Amino acid sequence: MPAEWVTFAFPLTVPLLADFSAVAMTSPAPVAEPAETLTVMGGGLVGCLLALYLTRHGHQVDVFERRPDIRGATPVEARSINLALSDRGWRALEGVGIAEAVREVAIPMHGRVMHDPAGNLTHQPYGQAGQAIYSVSRAGLNRRMLDLAEQQPGIRVQFNQQCRRVDVRRQELEMLDVATGQARTVPYQRLFGADGAYSAVRGALQRTDRFNYSQHYLDYGYKELTIAAGPDNTWALEKNALHIWPRGQYMMIALPNLDGSFNCTLFFPYEGPVSFATLQTPAQVRDFFADVFPDAVPLMPELETEFFDNPTSSLVTVRCFPWTYQHDVLLLGDASHAIVPFYGQGMNAGFEDCTVLDQLLQQHGRDWGQIFHEFEVSRKPDADAMADLAVYNFQEMRDRVADPRFLLQKKIEGKISGQYPDKWLPLYSQVTFSHLPYAEALANGQAQEQIMQRLMPHIQTEQDYQRPEVQDLVAQEMARR
Amino acid sequence: MPAEWVTFAFPLTVPLLADFSAVAMTSPAPVAEPAETLTVMGGGLVGCLLALYLTRHGHQVDVFERRPDIRGATPVEARSINLALSDRGWRALEGVGIAEAVREVAIPMHGRVMHDPAGNLTHQPYGQAGQAIYSVSRAGLNRRMLDLAEQQPGIRVQFNQQCRRVDVRRQELEMLDVATGQARTVPYQRLFGADGAYSAVRGALQRTDRFNYSQHYLDYGYKELTIAAGPDNTWALEKNALHIWPRGQYMMIALPNLDGSFNCTLFFPYEGPVSFATLQTPAQVRDFFADVFPDAVPLMPELETEFFDNPTSSLVTVRCFPWTYQHDVLLLGDASHAIVPFYGQGMNAGFEDCTVLDQLLQQHGRDWGQIFHEFEVSRKPDADAMADLAVYNFQEMRDRVADPRFLLQKKIEGKISGQYPDKWLPLYSQVTFSHLPYAEALANGQAQEQIMQRLMPHIQTEQDYQRPEVQDLVAQEMARR
Repeated sequence: MPAEWVTFAFPLTVPLLADFSAVAMTSPAPVAEPAETLTVMGGGLVGCLLALYLTRHGHQVDVFERRPDIRGATPVEARSINLALSDRGWRALEGVGIAEAVREVAIPMHGRVMHDPAGNLTHQPYGQAGQAIYSVSRAGLNRRMLDLAEQQPGIRVQFNQQCRRVDVRRQELEMLDVATGQARTVPYQRLFGADGAYSAVRGALQRTDRFNYSQHYLDYGYKELTIAAGPDNTWALEKNALHIWPRGQYMMIALPNLDGSFNCTLFFPYEGPVSFATLQTPAQVRDFFADVFPDAVPLMPELETEFFDNPTSSLVTVRCFPWTYQHDVLLLGDASHAIVPFYGQGMNAGFEDCTVLDQLLQQHGRDWGQIFHEFEVSRKPDADAMADLAVYNFQEMRDRVADPRFLLQKKIEGKISGQYPDKWLPLYSQVTFSHLPYAEALANGQAQEQIMQRLMPHIQTEQDYQRPEVQDLVAQEMARR
Repeated sequence: MPAEWVTFAFPLTVPLLADFSAVAMTSPAPVAEPAETLTVMGGGLVGCLLALYLTRHGHQVDVFERRPDIRGATPVEARSINLALSDRGWRALEGVGIAEAVREVAIPMHGRVMHDPAGNLTHQPYGQAGQAIYSVSRAGLNRRMLDLAEQQPGIRVQFNQQCRRVDVRRQELEMLDVATGQARTVPYQRLFGADGAYSAVRGALQRTDRFNYSQHYLDYGYKELTIAAGPDNTWALEKNALHIWPRGQYMMIALPNLDGSFNCTLFFPYEGPVSFATLQTPAQVRDFFADVFPDAVPLMPELETEFFDNPTSSLVTVRCFPWTYQHDVLLLGDASHAIVPFYGQGMNAGFEDCTVLDQLLQQHGRDWGQIFHEFEVSRKPDADAMADLAVYNFQEMRDRVADPRFLLQKKIEGKISGQYPDKWLPLYSQVTFSHLPYAEALANGQAQEQIMQRLMPHIQTEQDYQRPEVQDLVAQEMARR
């Protein structure tokens, strides 16, 4: 179990209940309509948050989770990755009153720190002063959300429940209790598939007619590694940053933990001259890392062991449509739009699904047909846009952030944004620090990139931005927006 | 059972065996390597043809087919569609010596006949004189191929065998005999998935890591209808043609049967102002058809009954990669590359898979690793190209063939091809009447389209082609090729 969660104690009950009643007063569910028992497949981050939202609208919620209760897991079983929580995620957590408690154990990262092959560092802030994304432990966050869900009288979470089959016509689940080996058939009224990138619920929809679906893998895998804590749980690298070792065709990143360590991830080709396929012995791993990540290797005492003990994991983008089956089934989160992790938006997008659904529940009460329809139609373009942005950001992180011209362009964009704050919000900020629909952010970003391609030929240094002819060009571009 | 197959009797045994020994003499399998027992999932067109090819290389073949034996089916159960057999398909049939027998019951279609809303006809030949595509009954062809397969001592076909699960790691199939209800586990050495667009074998590969997959549906469905035979089994429309009623956003086509009838297919939007959703009563159907297909309606006495009795079927494109699992599993035909039917190449592409595999078997003997690798790497770009071409041809058939400028362009292309036969083979001919890889055909077709976009502004009538300035332009374009 990551050390940061050992002493993690939310002041759970009282503020939550207070918060719930406050919301209930401002947006009561329509009175005449009876509550339903809803079924949520998946007790991960999105499944738990979804259950919390649904119960606020007066529904009973049954949550089925395939894995054992993570709160009883040993540290090895619960080996966690870190996620970058940002504004969309925070808003969703605030909606059920748990944001502040999470914030206590989240580490703000104000920018990227790039490590070049000689060990030189370059800083690039993520946004304006005070803005940050937050490193949180996935397992720790999941534990707390399970605690919260189970404290609600309307929510029941069952673990070790593997969904073997969904019969969407009969509205029945074939569930296997993997702890006891017992199989049973469970009827459902309304089913929410929050069961992740390999969703069993989506698997059932995929076999219905006219279900569009794709799963596409990058030729890259990833490997989790660790930068050890320094003496007295201090951080061996700058704590409040996301560290990147960009190397063109591959990269390593590191996110801080509360105990002084960093969770590192190597994103690396599966095949080719420099790839997982060619690193076969501890000596090869050590030599390679010493060569390309020289400043990191001394901080990674378990490097060879971790490299061969930890799995190599794949990177998939999942797209599908529809996200519904009639008025009975709805997919959310990774189940409908799994994305690669390079924009730090996978969890945030799934949490935002809950925000959007909550708004529709407030608007339409129990009119599930309308709610499901509006949800999938409005949300699908945003999910597609975010999937594209995530793949794009991999190129940016592993390659372009090592390019001085790219870094200069980012600085100029920052200056434009400072001078014309109403006309220019950087794409990264639109995605990370705003609630603009992802599809709008992507379109804005593409328009901004075209402007920068017109401006940058006139700019060789940061100071050039103040030159009158550059100022004129910028003013002309801004006048058109 | 379609009438044309009732009296369909191949002179099966003698020529086939003679043919087999001839091939065995010219390309013997390497002697030292022992034969294997191979498993083919699917006893449809591609599965049967594949089994015939594999057994020629000395292997035993077990074929599992989910459906009952189609040869015992009643006419209603065996309601068949017509397929357009063309050169790639013929070559594959020739390779196992059955082409001539099929040709006896195939109806050549030398061109398209377009029916405009007033009932006027326009003819467009498919190729040069003597070239044609051939209308054959899918069910009839399947019956004959099953007969042929079962006559080979090395082939065993089992019906009613539903594949419930494939365990690719243990190399085991979980089969259900749907006639007896008996389940059993069947081990395999090497498995060929020829089980169609909804392949169970592909379903197993989809759950392995890093399997790229997509299924994409058109917003159109199709409905099978019938133009009745005329008196004394004569044809009410021109027999040796593929008839098209192009109507912009939808179309109907008709292919001839031996008994004088035509199998019609309506390709029609699922939703929208003119769609399956809006045709809800027999009167609506009759009125609509009378309005838009006035010359066809008098020939369709069962129109309303068929419209509501026959299913509305969907149109899917399936892409995936890899097509293999290690050296043990290979996907072929629709299982790896299901396409929409608008180029008449679905069956032909699956048959060509068998030709390509046969060539690799001749080359590499029992080196399955090499055979599977070369097969998927060489064939995947062609399958993708054919999928794109098939979708493109839908637009052409439903919309562009009603445009006089498009028809003029096609005529000019025919003239260029006649004048420069070594430099210009029309795209349709490359796909239909050649064995050029589909990917090359697509690339050539795109280059030709660019040339036509440069030439057509100078051409207003068919006669303009002979004008000196046009001849000069064409000569310049051809000199570059």
